[in-house]
Amino acid sequence: MKILGIDPGTGICGFGVIEISKNNKVKMLDNGVITTPAHTPLPDRLLDIYQSMHEIVEQDKPDLISIEKLFFTKNITTGISVAEARGICLLVARQNNLPIFEYTPNEIKKALTGYGNADKKQMQEMVRLHLGLETAPKPDDAADALAAAITHSLNIRGTM
Amino acid sequence: MKILGIDPGTGICGFGVIEISKNNKVKMLDNGVITTPAHTPLPDRLLDIYQSMHEIVEQDKPDLISIEKLFFTKNITTGISVAEARGICLLVARQNNLPIFEYTPNEIKKALTGYGNADKKQMQEMVRLHLGLETAPKPDDAADALAAAITHSLNIRGTM
Repeated sequence: MKILGIDPGTGICGFGVIEISKNNKVKMLDNGVITTPAHTPLPDRLLDIYQSMHEIVEQDKPDLISIEKLFFTKNITTGISVAEARGICLLVARQNNLPIFEYTPNEIKKALTGYGNADKKQMQEMVRLHLGLETAPKPDDAADALAAAITHSLNIRGTM
Repeated sequence: MKILGIDPGTGICGFGVIEISKNNKVKMLDNGVITTPAHTPLPDRLLDIYQSMHEIVEQDKPDLISIEKLFFTKNITTGISVAEARGICLLVARQNNLPIFEYTPNEIKKALTGYGNADKKQMQEMVRLHLGLETAPKPDDAADALAAAITHSLNIRGTM
């Protein structure tokens, strides 16, 4: 089973694809970020994300999507633009008939480290260990997307 | 020139199309709402909005779009879902190469009534008067979408 993890954002949208085998082994297949230039009009950026997400789905052929749920505590303006990008990602998933699973940042941190307030460094290290990589994926947004995918893989472990 | 006004939302998304003639006369061509059932998964609702918006653009053939800008003061959870729907509307506009103009709720109220905190009833009455209608369009979301379109028409008055 292939899981596409997404860390939504307008300026930078992380993605990561992992594969789980029958014996619960997890392998990383792909990861990266969709970046859109800061001074481009928002509709152009959303179209970029829409097209890139369709390309990723077409290329990596995931079975489902695991995406960060929005959770506002700090910056509302950032939150709006994340929500706009997240809506596009959900649309693309739906257009491809992919089931969608959502996890809050805290759920993802807790799943990987056992602690809901783990810091970025700790999270990157756990992503690295889970996927058996030599170095943690960069940038943070790609690692966060993989963390969302790993969270879902841990949730369904033993059910396959 | 035809302007498509949009009042974005996930549960109910208002739209209204007006036409401005060379002598600055404004006529209503279409208005309504896209509603999506409350207990449907969000991605299904976003797909509904995406498809309906494409149909509206195809049918009414607007030259540009005037849409409410997001502005959070009250409910952040509502704000997230409005932003997700708004992202979809902006995407559809971009896919149809339609220029997009954005106005905050206050700018729209001020343009129609001269007062940034006008209430719903006052706004509906001004929409009715501007468009020369016998009764104000219902529901509120359709009237709000027309108000966004009228705001842009007032902004470009005399420049055509």
